[in-house]
Amino acid sequence: MDKNCPITKTLAHFSRKWTLLILRELHNNGAKRFNHLISDMKDISPRTLSKRLKDLEKLGLVSKKRFNEIPPRVEYSLTNKGKEVIKCFKYLDNWVKRFDIK
Amino acid sequence: MDKNCPITKTLAHFSRKWTLLILRELHNNGAKRFNHLISDMKDISPRTLSKRLKDLEKLGLVSKKRFNEIPPRVEYSLTNKGKEVIKCFKYLDNWVKRFDIK
Repeated sequence: MDKNCPITKTLAHFSRKWTLLILRELHNNGAKRFNHLISDMKDISPRTLSKRLKDLEKLGLVSKKRFNEIPPRVEYSLTNKGKEVIKCFKYLDNWVKRFDIK
Repeated sequence: MDKNCPITKTLAHFSRKWTLLILRELHNNGAKRFNHLISDMKDISPRTLSKRLKDLEKLGLVSKKRFNEIPPRVEYSLTNKGKEVIKCFKYLDNWVKRFDIK
């Protein structure tokens, strides 16, 4: 039995505070600028948001798009891989609600 | 936005090493005795297995049944809640395979 279970390793990323909430925000509202994420998510610090977005980019779940405008504009959105993983967590969300997990 | 996301908290449990593998073992093979889990899962120490089973019992995902026999027999199995959560992880398992996550 493979103790280095890839699902367990994947979950370690998603169990970090804010990660799922960032994905949900981008899923529900499409592409977003950094400052809009900060203002819409409340309570998250720019430092934490920046770190989490970098992690999500590395994992290939979020892409960063730069627009050649003045002032420069940068938007974050879910990749196809990110959209697909959100679907998995919808099942877990139903389970959490069904069994009233706090 | 609720930063104390119940899904994130739930994932923290499942991202612990061995937890998903124990659930999978009980899901694929039904009720099992402690020593059979130890021998079938290999590499897991009795101490770790004992801790994880206690956590899973507290979460209501695994139940422990004592049989009045001599010598006494104890078996672990998935509860309904545990069986349902396994289904959620099957979607994540498909995602991991589809995007070749290591």
